[in-house]
Amino acid sequence: MPKLSKRAEVMPPSPIRKLVPFAEEAKKKGRTVYHLNIGQPDINTPEVALEAIRNFDKKVVEYSHSAGIESYRRGLANYYQKIGVDVDFNDIIVTTGGSEALVFAMMTALNPGDEIIIPEPFYTNYNSFSVFANIKVVPITSKIENDFALPPISEFVEKITDKTKAILVCNPSNPTGSLYSKEDLELLKEIVIEKDLFIISDEVYREFVYDGNTHTSVMQLEGLENNAVLIDSTSKRYSECGTRMGCLVSKNKELMASVLKFAQARLSPPTFGQVAGEASLNTPDSYFTEVYDEYIARRNFVVEELNKIEGVYAPKPKGAFYTIISLPIEDAEHFCQWLLEDYHFENQTVMLAPAAGFYATPNLGKNEVRIAYVLKIEDLKNAVKVIEEALKVYKGK
Amino acid sequence: MPKLSKRAEVMPPSPIRKLVPFAEEAKKKGRTVYHLNIGQPDINTPEVALEAIRNFDKKVVEYSHSAGIESYRRGLANYYQKIGVDVDFNDIIVTTGGSEALVFAMMTALNPGDEIIIPEPFYTNYNSFSVFANIKVVPITSKIENDFALPPISEFVEKITDKTKAILVCNPSNPTGSLYSKEDLELLKEIVIEKDLFIISDEVYREFVYDGNTHTSVMQLEGLENNAVLIDSTSKRYSECGTRMGCLVSKNKELMASVLKFAQARLSPPTFGQVAGEASLNTPDSYFTEVYDEYIARRNFVVEELNKIEGVYAPKPKGAFYTIISLPIEDAEHFCQWLLEDYHFENQTVMLAPAAGFYATPNLGKNEVRIAYVLKIEDLKNAVKVIEEALKVYKGK
Repeated sequence: MPKLSKRAEVMPPSPIRKLVPFAEEAKKKGRTVYHLNIGQPDINTPEVALEAIRNFDKKVVEYSHSAGIESYRRGLANYYQKIGVDVDFNDIIVTTGGSEALVFAMMTALNPGDEIIIPEPFYTNYNSFSVFANIKVVPITSKIENDFALPPISEFVEKITDKTKAILVCNPSNPTGSLYSKEDLELLKEIVIEKDLFIISDEVYREFVYDGNTHTSVMQLEGLENNAVLIDSTSKRYSECGTRMGCLVSKNKELMASVLKFAQARLSPPTFGQVAGEASLNTPDSYFTEVYDEYIARRNFVVEELNKIEGVYAPKPKGAFYTIISLPIEDAEHFCQWLLEDYHFENQTVMLAPAAGFYATPNLGKNEVRIAYVLKIEDLKNAVKVIEEALKVYKGK
Repeated sequence: MPKLSKRAEVMPPSPIRKLVPFAEEAKKKGRTVYHLNIGQPDINTPEVALEAIRNFDKKVVEYSHSAGIESYRRGLANYYQKIGVDVDFNDIIVTTGGSEALVFAMMTALNPGDEIIIPEPFYTNYNSFSVFANIKVVPITSKIENDFALPPISEFVEKITDKTKAILVCNPSNPTGSLYSKEDLELLKEIVIEKDLFIISDEVYREFVYDGNTHTSVMQLEGLENNAVLIDSTSKRYSECGTRMGCLVSKNKELMASVLKFAQARLSPPTFGQVAGEASLNTPDSYFTEVYDEYIARRNFVVEELNKIEGVYAPKPKGAFYTIISLPIEDAEHFCQWLLEDYHFENQTVMLAPAAGFYATPNLGKNEVRIAYVLKIEDLKNAVKVIEEALKVYKGK
């Protein structure tokens, strides 16, 4: 039997996947499992998007242009203009989810073996895409005691080597909910320019910024035109994860010409997703107000209630719909499995994501879990109650 | 300005893209351009697929399982069973087009720097995906004078080094239309087993096999269970290229577990494409009979008419809907550009794909072009007439 590649071996499995069979078992036993483990919102997709799909009237589902349907790209440019990001449709390449945009960015900017600096804890798939691109992730630790603020710039400077080609940030952040201010980004800008790096900014949670904070895009920083690469996706903005619609945005013409070659290789992004994405641009403002109010209420509820539990610390996220919390336990992985395998409170239990999987540095986040507050408040209430009761009886402290 | 990666530089541009601006110019001049350059069929997508899309009634377009929606995978397994390929739904991972399946196969089977043997001329994007995977393509030349038959096995043996991990075949072949018989595949099987290689077989044109020939899948060869990887796509079978629906099929459990990790990284294949793909499995047989008869008629017409032109040789393809033909010219790239830029016959011209881009060996195929017979006969008739008249006046012979 032929041997698989080393990258197949090192490709990290999803940190949640190990728990899936236990969640399935719990459900078979008739238990309600509250899924706080995954960023699949329960919010409806905008009706305009679904309507566009139901009205699809072409006879042949053809390839689109490799960079995306032009009218969709023009619509996206218009969306960016409205939020103060000055780009043209030529600065946008439509991708199959933010995932593909990230892979294209990494492959275009970095050689195999080059280094990319990423503040941790970070979205686990950044690790996976680094395996795709055969590049090395250099983490810089942000800490729960600072509510996962951007680490001091001095730490970035320390980690920069002659292999460093890019810094990747997620703003607002999955998994921490932290938000980088304009001042934070200006500090990053200085070293990016000084060291001639790319800055890749994953801003898919842009619309989810709370408490009067405003979102600053890396595309809004002057003088970064050739360094900044924006990664975007419609998945969270319009709760349409399954459409797999993302895009890569940059004013760097040379980079865009190269990204287009990668895009041409896979022919085109999905046609139906583009139809839904283009229609989504006409989502009424009321949709966002409702969604926004719902998330604020969920966040406020879940953070407040979790902090009431003895030994639990939940930072108040400024954006996105995640928070990483610390628990009075030794090993979150064991706790999460125990919750599904051995525990229930009034026939209910909770699925959480152990946070260790979001750190690249070994042994960090062992007593932390990520919470996605993507369920309605009634469910969140029950879920928090399960955690509270579970911690009273759990032995692994 | 930061430097791009070397892979961004070496990523080959589409051989057709250079011609695109000239085709656009020709259209602006009011000329009819017959596109024989791309495998975008003009055949309608099955009505059942479009109907399923129009009837999409979910409120949230969610991520699916990373391996694909289970009912779709079960439906695919049933489709394979019917055509004599004995697989279970667990042997199938749904991908975003055949493209993604190829990238996953290459990354899972080969380390960076490893070698993959591919008979040339081959689908140009095999080269691109090899850049994604950072592996080396080792071509073995098949020749137009043999109607692009599988090269002798001795040539494969000669090319195998300790870096060789896989052989990739396209059967029936884009771009040549050649078909490998069961006997051909049995010969390949011997060296695959002897040298412990993977054999990756791209069979997306399976349904397009002519003249009473039957298609043999690499999955039907006994004893290859751990070596064979099937790449498939619904793009051509149901003329639904824009859905981006493919899959990777293998009985090798270890390989499938690794491919799943790659699939989990990008979360899920497109939901709408899967809905269309699953519905397409219920396409009535009459659809295929009509499509099949249409392609046979097109092939017969185009091959016969091209061979009547002095100095032109068009092999009669046994499958797919392409043929590579030789022309009495020096440089097909120049000829193709000239057709669009400087020539017209009764205000019509033709866009062809220069064949050099389908060879990995430099300087091969310089007097060859690929023809995709994806247009209706009336258009093909006009297109062939343009080629005939153009060759009478073209100077570059």
